[in-house]
Amino acid sequence: MLDFQAILKGIHQDAIHASDKGVVASYIPELAHIDKNNFGIHLRTSRGETYGAGEFNKPFSIQSISKVLSLAKAMSLIGEDVWKRVDVEPSGHPFNQLALLEVENGIPRNPLINSGALVIADVLVSHLENPKADFLKFVREITNDSNIKYNEAVAISEKNTGFKNYAAANLLKSFKNLQNPVEEVLDFYFHQCALEMTCTQLTKTFFFLANKGTCLLNKVHLKESQVKRINAIMLTCGFYDEAGEFAFEVGLPGKSGVGGGIVALLPDNFVITTWSPGLNKKGNSKLGMLALEAFTTRTKRSIF
Amino acid sequence: MLDFQAILKGIHQDAIHASDKGVVASYIPELAHIDKNNFGIHLRTSRGETYGAGEFNKPFSIQSISKVLSLAKAMSLIGEDVWKRVDVEPSGHPFNQLALLEVENGIPRNPLINSGALVIADVLVSHLENPKADFLKFVREITNDSNIKYNEAVAISEKNTGFKNYAAANLLKSFKNLQNPVEEVLDFYFHQCALEMTCTQLTKTFFFLANKGTCLLNKVHLKESQVKRINAIMLTCGFYDEAGEFAFEVGLPGKSGVGGGIVALLPDNFVITTWSPGLNKKGNSKLGMLALEAFTTRTKRSIF
Amino acid sequence: MLDFQAILKGIHQDAIHASDKGVVASYIPELAHIDKNNFGIHLRTSRGETYGAGEFNKPFSIQSISKVLSLAKAMSLIGEDVWKRVDVEPSGHPFNQLALLEVENGIPRNPLINSGALVIADVLVSHLENPKADFLKFVREITNDSNIKYNEAVAISEKNTGFKNYAAANLLKSFKNLQNPVEEVLDFYFHQCALEMTCTQLTKTFFFLANKGTCLLNKVHLKESQVKRINAIMLTCGFYDEAGEFAFEVGLPGKSGVGGGIVALLPDNFVITTWSPGLNKKGNSKLGMLALEAFTTRTKRSIF
Amino acid sequence: MLDFQAILKGIHQDAIHASDKGVVASYIPELAHIDKNNFGIHLRTSRGETYGAGEFNKPFSIQSISKVLSLAKAMSLIGEDVWKRVDVEPSGHPFNQLALLEVENGIPRNPLINSGALVIADVLVSHLENPKADFLKFVREITNDSNIKYNEAVAISEKNTGFKNYAAANLLKSFKNLQNPVEEVLDFYFHQCALEMTCTQLTKTFFFLANKGTCLLNKVHLKESQVKRINAIMLTCGFYDEAGEFAFEVGLPGKSGVGGGIVALLPDNFVITTWSPGLNKKGNSKLGMLALEAFTTRTKRSIF
Repeated sequence: MLDFQAILKGIHQDAIHASDKGVVASYIPELAHIDKNNFGIHLRTSRGETYGAGEFNKPFSIQSISKVLSLAKAMSLIGEDVWKRVDVEPSGHPFNQLALLEVENGIPRNPLINSGALVIADVLVSHLENPKADFLKFVREITNDSNIKYNEAVAISEKNTGFKNYAAANLLKSFKNLQNPVEEVLDFYFHQCALEMTCTQLTKTFFFLANKGTCLLNKVHLKESQVKRINAIMLTCGFYDEAGEFAFEVGLPGKSGVGGGIVALLPDNFVITTWSPGLNKKGNSKLGMLALEAFTTRTKRSIF
Repeated sequence: MLDFQAILKGIHQDAIHASDKGVVASYIPELAHIDKNNFGIHLRTSRGETYGAGEFNKPFSIQSISKVLSLAKAMSLIGEDVWKRVDVEPSGHPFNQLALLEVENGIPRNPLINSGALVIADVLVSHLENPKADFLKFVREITNDSNIKYNEAVAISEKNTGFKNYAAANLLKSFKNLQNPVEEVLDFYFHQCALEMTCTQLTKTFFFLANKGTCLLNKVHLKESQVKRINAIMLTCGFYDEAGEFAFEVGLPGKSGVGGGIVALLPDNFVITTWSPGLNKKGNSKLGMLALEAFTTRTKRSIF
Repeated sequence: MLDFQAILKGIHQDAIHASDKGVVASYIPELAHIDKNNFGIHLRTSRGETYGAGEFNKPFSIQSISKVLSLAKAMSLIGEDVWKRVDVEPSGHPFNQLALLEVENGIPRNPLINSGALVIADVLVSHLENPKADFLKFVREITNDSNIKYNEAVAISEKNTGFKNYAAANLLKSFKNLQNPVEEVLDFYFHQCALEMTCTQLTKTFFFLANKGTCLLNKVHLKESQVKRINAIMLTCGFYDEAGEFAFEVGLPGKSGVGGGIVALLPDNFVITTWSPGLNKKGNSKLGMLALEAFTTRTKRSIF
Repeated sequence: MLDFQAILKGIHQDAIHASDKGVVASYIPELAHIDKNNFGIHLRTSRGETYGAGEFNKPFSIQSISKVLSLAKAMSLIGEDVWKRVDVEPSGHPFNQLALLEVENGIPRNPLINSGALVIADVLVSHLENPKADFLKFVREITNDSNIKYNEAVAISEKNTGFKNYAAANLLKSFKNLQNPVEEVLDFYFHQCALEMTCTQLTKTFFFLANKGTCLLNKVHLKESQVKRINAIMLTCGFYDEAGEFAFEVGLPGKSGVGGGIVALLPDNFVITTWSPGLNKKGNSKLGMLALEAFTTRTKRSIF
């Protein structure tokens, strides 16, 4: 039988001794000062066993990982209508490119690139009574943890510097693929990205996606086919233009965030989260990618 | 000798009897209701003779034609430094495409596409004490007409619907090629585009570009080499992706606006303005293009 | 327990009664006349049980499905060096677009788009003594069937009309990412695409990819990690710009061909092949996609 | 009155003392060995006066300059039908990019980029009885010089290395915008580019474009409107993505070639040719550009 705790410890040791820990993203000023020596890893199996090593209880900014959560909420609200406004194909391009949006008449390639996530944010702003509060409530519920909150300083920092997101939102608006005011959608979006969680929390949050749509509290949030859809999208689109690399090296559906977090899962088996703030050239956590690759190699647990 | 008045009258007659008068632009609501049966044409020679036919004394929104004026003002303020922030090459693309901007790191292809004009607007906001007032003063001075003014309703209409311009400005900002706040630059830009003039006024305004930089009041605004630069840019970039067609069909440096105006000039010879609100598929005044083609064909006056 | 035979029969019945059977590709003249009422489906489990319905023993042109086989052979010859000349990311574009190739300096996005497959073909031409004969021998061996052969008429038909492939090969050559003469590489490529197989044969051919690299004859052709790599690439890149859709609807690594074939597999479980010549708008077999979706839905066997 | 001979001599002196003479193109092996210290300049006025300095009687490969001549011949053969197969707009891109061709369904942006020139070559192959011989005859006639010939070694050198041209031709063929076999069109094209002339000859060759379509032998080759069209295209498209710069710096319709030649003209006034093999980063002759800029600055002769 696999000794998960020993495996996580080994990965943690490798990580803290790595000579190249990547580069902390500087474009969100509030995140630029995070110490890149932080490294946390946490695993939760479908039987409820948990394992952790390093800083797995230190909160970090989940950033783009939140796109999976907003997509899940949007699908629970309007179902397949989501796909009228956003496609499900890999973008084949860096995460911030607007070119395809112009060529494809304002239909983002998928909900995990920024423009696609803005459309999903717009759906939530339209369908939630108190968008920010209701979305937070949803995240707290699936995680079974009422302490999760937005980091307002990070949200403001992104608002003040997120010109590319303003550009994308306005471009969507010009194609009539944003129904609410740009400022309102971006305010929601910057907040969802500013959610703070620990590795432990994040593995709990994503549990419902490894559990056919049913969260820790045994509540059904999505249909099984919807969960399959989200997992497929994570696998093909979850890592910007490193999705193919991740699919091979790790072989799990997953999502990364510019805050250095990565969450990945094997359906009916486990959820695993890593956090290491230094990024590689493609914008994904450098040590997190290596850690997950080591994990699936050592445990031989992947979808392929 | 050429009978200019007869020629203009003939062109006017052809225009009012044209079966296809193009389509009035609808994306600026305030301009959508203009009657496309309006047609004005006005000529001013370098000797000071003037000729007109049709609605040449009815004011219209000059829109993108203003980009030439803001460029002239920016060059008078900071000279060749303008070219550090904007290139001088044809874009080979429709006027609103952001793709090239991303590929070329935030340096717009030329100052007559929207993104380039926004950079020029930023220069003016930085270097003019009261940008909107001072720019209006400049336009009034070169035209020798203190009645010229901004149409505030049009400026507001564009502000409320100009999402692509917001997208472009934010994209420029993300590349650090906009020094002032996006809102401030756009407020200036929407006002410059909302300048209203008659054909008569516009021929006077552009006189200095056919006169080596010296305006009607005999004041030198630009060096001869700067005027040559502006005229070259108008010829190669003045008509979106119909620049090559205009260069051939008309053979004059010129600039069109979505309000249906076109101004063109032959250095040391004349300035000519047409106004007809219906546009062709490329976004240029349909009858205006035909009128100028007829004019240069009948008078054999072009640069080629 | 699942009654696979009944499930395949049901899918076959649905297929032959489908009102819209797609459109047979016309750009390869030799394939244009195939009757689109053909429909075959064949399944082989890892325990060696086989099931079939419809025309599963009628040969068809495997076309792009062969790209997986040439990739496997190239990896067996030069290992990871393959990735110096071709990337592993989804293209996000239709299969024949050369634009990305120019932008990315002649490195194709992945080995399953045409330009990438041409680079792989070049590898084989360089490393096999008698490229066409040796590759055929490899395919016969992994399939344990010496009757498989190239359809020369189809190869010639493609040679005479494959101008886009000639364009791609020459573009690769201009970037020095083709070592052999263009004609030689294309001759090999047109032959590999012109391989003919039945559904029964194709499920046998792909067996080694569901069996950790070991073929039916118990010979090891690839390392387990190489098989994982190929399966990951099939999942993210196997269906042109419908890869995301297939990943969701079917949830299996797979590859389609313009001849109407699709092969898909669940590691350690089964290989399944469908053949239906009518294509959908994205160039994948219309009924084949629906059949595989039905299969994974009814059997609940997918990677997600 | 202007002393043209003194001006040319001054320009020649500046050129031979220039510290940076650019880089000789290496992609056509046969041209890579040309000494970049060569510099020739030659002027012919519409009154028949001629002036020269430096190596103006040494032959060089005219390369892309030939595209203007093939266009002229094609227009004389099929008139406006040319524009059904090629557009007249600036490309806004480097000369060898195939991307736009794909986006725009095989219609090249203009006849002076490679893909456009290939379409024109195809027109000539279709309409001339002995394409290469007849085109050479045409060039000899307009130049009134029977010594002009193709350099076969250069043509072969291009044939062996011109993979991007092969790519472009095949791409055009795939869009059915090439009627003759790829090899035949390219053979013609490589020959037209391999025409060799001296500056003296080239000024004579282009005389008819500064003379309303009538050549030195007083024969009418094109209608006045066709000449206007060609001159407009040279101005907007003659210098790859440096067309805007040339329009400003020089202010004349003109065309450059990778062999280091540039020819420019002022209608009804003069034709001027320079030759200096070292190129700048955009692929135009470095000293040739400077020489023409100096010429129009010192003589104040330009279209603006």
